[in-house]
Amino acid sequence: MSKRGMLIVLSGPSGVGKGTVRKALFSQPGNDFQYSVSMTTRQPRPGEVNGKDYFFVSKEEFEQHIREGQMLEYAKYVDNYYGTPLKYINDTLDEGKDVFLEIEVNGAMQVRSKCPDGVFIFLTPPDLMELRQRLIHRGTDSMEVINKRIHKAFGEIQMMQNYDYAVVNDQVDNAVTKIKDIIRSERLRVPRVMPDYLEMLGDSEK
Amino acid sequence: MSKRGMLIVLSGPSGVGKGTVRKALFSQPGNDFQYSVSMTTRQPRPGEVNGKDYFFVSKEEFEQHIREGQMLEYAKYVDNYYGTPLKYINDTLDEGKDVFLEIEVNGAMQVRSKCPDGVFIFLTPPDLMELRQRLIHRGTDSMEVINKRIHKAFGEIQMMQNYDYAVVNDQVDNAVTKIKDIIRSERLRVPRVMPDYLEMLGDSEK
Repeated sequence: MSKRGMLIVLSGPSGVGKGTVRKALFSQPGNDFQYSVSMTTRQPRPGEVNGKDYFFVSKEEFEQHIREGQMLEYAKYVDNYYGTPLKYINDTLDEGKDVFLEIEVNGAMQVRSKCPDGVFIFLTPPDLMELRQRLIHRGTDSMEVINKRIHKAFGEIQMMQNYDYAVVNDQVDNAVTKIKDIIRSERLRVPRVMPDYLEMLGDSEK
Repeated sequence: MSKRGMLIVLSGPSGVGKGTVRKALFSQPGNDFQYSVSMTTRQPRPGEVNGKDYFFVSKEEFEQHIREGQMLEYAKYVDNYYGTPLKYINDTLDEGKDVFLEIEVNGAMQVRSKCPDGVFIFLTPPDLMELRQRLIHRGTDSMEVINKRIHKAFGEIQMMQNYDYAVVNDQVDNAVTKIKDIIRSERLRVPRVMPDYLEMLGDSEK
């Protein structure tokens, strides 16, 4: 009878501060969505807790998950696998609870192709919009620095086009507030609330 | 250079309390969107101010607006015209400011066909969802009352499908908060922020 939960994906270019924003979001009380813990084959760093920071598994175990279609998305960086196990997400969504993922852009695109009705949020570096100011006051930066940043900006804007929302990470608190606004308002989208109404009317015909 | 503003349309079935919610929204300080005053041929009621509550015009003036294509939407109720003049909206959107309309459902559908990138919010009566409870406890209502409400519910849900968001008017303050969440998060939608980024990169090629 319960409606399926909503999948929320936070991603963005490398170094934009996705992890910091996600940690700040989950450090706040009263969140009504669950964090999906990633799985990795890399060694735990001091202080990291299995099942909280990551599920730490062997290479063999990770590859078995891949073979059995148990990963929603995964990637290999520097000889280690990182990815999102499917089971926790499906179980949680089936319970009607919303799930929050914080993943790399390649992973996000894998998820988008499998879950088109998810909410995809792109975290943008603050200097992407400040670029305009820097271009206006050319004196402050060398042309090489500016050209390098423009090249990077093209890549970031290309990525952004595959997302639903763009949130500037100018300050962590601002970004967290905006992400919470997005989650609250996405829950009010007609395609998301419609099943509740239709189910009610369906029941009324019994 | 400025990006075009966003059009926000609040509508809903007759009697749902659209006007009350809109007034409560605009009574709050710090709103960064403009209210579009409707035009009508009906007589002002005591206390109503021309240009604030409505633009009060003659039948001839209103019909001239229609002929000249100067109405975004309009309808005739009980021998009087009601509608939204196009000029104020276009001028305000061109200035990059967001405009808020509170109109009847027929008008909202006229606006949707002309402004598909607007944000369309449907205010639903609280008893639409309470219907479920009322159906479960059949003893409290006669079958005639329940059947009448079910019939009305079908119509309301049909209407809702043409909107982006559904907000339950259970309490005016709750509805206002949700509408503000929606406006804030819609401003972060990639198709809305993209022009800013593209313009910035376009400038950089000069």
